[in-house]
Parts: sequence; structure tokens; C-alpha cells
Amino acid sequence: MNERFLEDLKKGDRFKSETYKVTEEQIISFAREFDPQPFHLEAVIARQTMFKELIASGWHTAAVTMRLFVQTLNFAEGAIGLGVDELRWPTAVKPNDVLQIETEIVDLRESRSKPSHGIIRIRNVTTNQRGEIVQTMFASALVLRRKRSDQTI
Amino acid sequence: MNERFLEDLKKGDRFKSETYKVTEEQIISFAREFDPQPFHLEAVIARQTMFKELIASGWHTAAVTMRLFVQTLNFAEGAIGLGVDELRWPTAVKPNDVLQIETEIVDLRESRSKPSHGIIRIRNVTTNQRGEIVQTMFASALVLRRKRSDQTI
Repeated sequence: MNERFLEDLKKGDRFKSETYKVTEEQIISFAREFDPQPFHLEAVIARQTMFKELIASGWHTAAVTMRLFVQTLNFAEGAIGLGVDELRWPTAVKPNDVLQIETEIVDLRESRSKPSHGIIRIRNVTTNQRGEIVQTMFASALVLRRKRSDQTI
Repeated sequence: MNERFLEDLKKGDRFKSETYKVTEEQIISFAREFDPQPFHLEAVIARQTMFKELIASGWHTAAVTMRLFVQTLNFAEGAIGLGVDELRWPTAVKPNDVLQIETEIVDLRESRSKPSHGIIRIRNVTTNQRGEIVQTMFASALVLRRKRSDQTI
């Protein structure tokens, strides 16, 4: 797929990602390293918690969302995260859930301080195989503009 | 360390975590799985980007922050994340940076819908070994209240 630049986007554009399956092993491995709480670590213990089964760390869901975003938008030289707002996890991710994201370009503009770049504002909605929303967020990122060699003549 | 409950906290309390070193291998391994962008994947390629060196994914910084938060506060039965606001990464994390967090209890109350629990509002500030702020965020979480057996008599 071609690399994307600021000029390839307009407000209101929507992009659907590929899908990504989250296994029990991945949930436990992420939790051991980053979020060692009982409901993320072991199915037997998780059954005694309010969730009644193993669930993924919200930060794991956020990380998988980033992976799907990077693959789908494929910005030239990458997208540099400036910040995230209103990150929510309305439904927990469970073993073997298949996640997919939809990215909407909420706003976009040229960067004033960095003329080679633009700033996009996006909304990412992550869903599972049942169409339930497992995560929502707004984010801002710095992305590259196309080089305008005509302007330098 | 004893497990913590809602009643062990008051507004304005602050907690400093242990430290956590982020290696180049960890930065690359996290990026391969969750944020495969050039400035997170390989030092040589990163030198040609605006960062001039390898930097950690912001989601990796967020995940390390969660680990330090979980270890430091040690809530009985864990803290269930409800949402995150104003997540920012003012300085990038680089190989061998040593991270530490400070958690402030911004607000806390009993849960109306779930009387066994309370809701805390926290601000987490993550710094590196030079005292530079690498991440700030606000978050809300559900935590357990102490059982009040006297009330059941």
C-alpha cells in the first residue's frame, strides 16, 4: 500500500482496519509485564473477581488499537502521537476476541511550528467480533506533508 | 506491603513508585508487536527521523506507568480502569531511561451503583532519571472498600 501524507486525508474520512485476534497467552503475557492484576493474570483467579473471567488490560487493548491504526493509515515516516483524550473501555476484551478499529479523521490542519508536517485529530473506535465497543478515544498526531518542490522554484 | 482499600486514601495523597529501566530491546520488542513505526524499531533508521534516535512508543510509556502504579498502590483485588483523560507525552523515552511515577489522589468517593467499591480520580506523572516529564495523565478507577461487617449486625 502507498504511504499516506496529510494531503491524502480530508475531514470525515473513515478507515476500517484488518482484524486482530487476542489470545489468552497474549493477555497474560502483557499483564505480567505491565498490568499484574488478578483479573488479567489467571483465568481461575479471574473467575472470583467481578469480571468472572480473564480480561485484557485496557492498556493492552490500547496497544492493539495502535497496531491496527499504524497498519491501516500507513503514514510516510510514521505518525507521531501528541496526545490522547477521553480514552474509555466500555466492554472488556476477553481471550480469543477479534478486534477491529475504525478511524475517523475528525480534523486536520498544517502545523504552524513545523511546516513540513500537519496535525490530524482522529477518533478511534475499537470493536470486538460481536460489534461491541471495547475502546474509544480521541488522539492528535503529527504527520508528514508531501514535499512541494514546485514551491521552491 | 498491605493491600490498599478506598478508606486508606484521602484527597491530595501522593505516592512515589520504585524506578523501572527501559532497555533498547524492550523498546523494539514492544514496537514490533504494537507500534511498528520507524523511530521505535531500529536505532539506525531512527537517526534519520526527527527524533535522531530510537524512542519508545507512547503506549509503551503508558504501559510501564501502569506497572509502576499497580505495584505502588497495591489495591485489594486490583484497580479497574474506567477511563483516561489528557494523556500527553511531553518528552520521548529513550533506551536506558529510568522511569518513576508520582500518583496524586485528585478526588475519591463511594460508588453509587456499586456500594462495595469506590471511585478514585488520579493524576499520574511519569519522569525520567533527569527529572524530565515523559508522560502525564488523569485516570479514574474503581477500587474496593473495606467490608463493614459491623453494619450487617
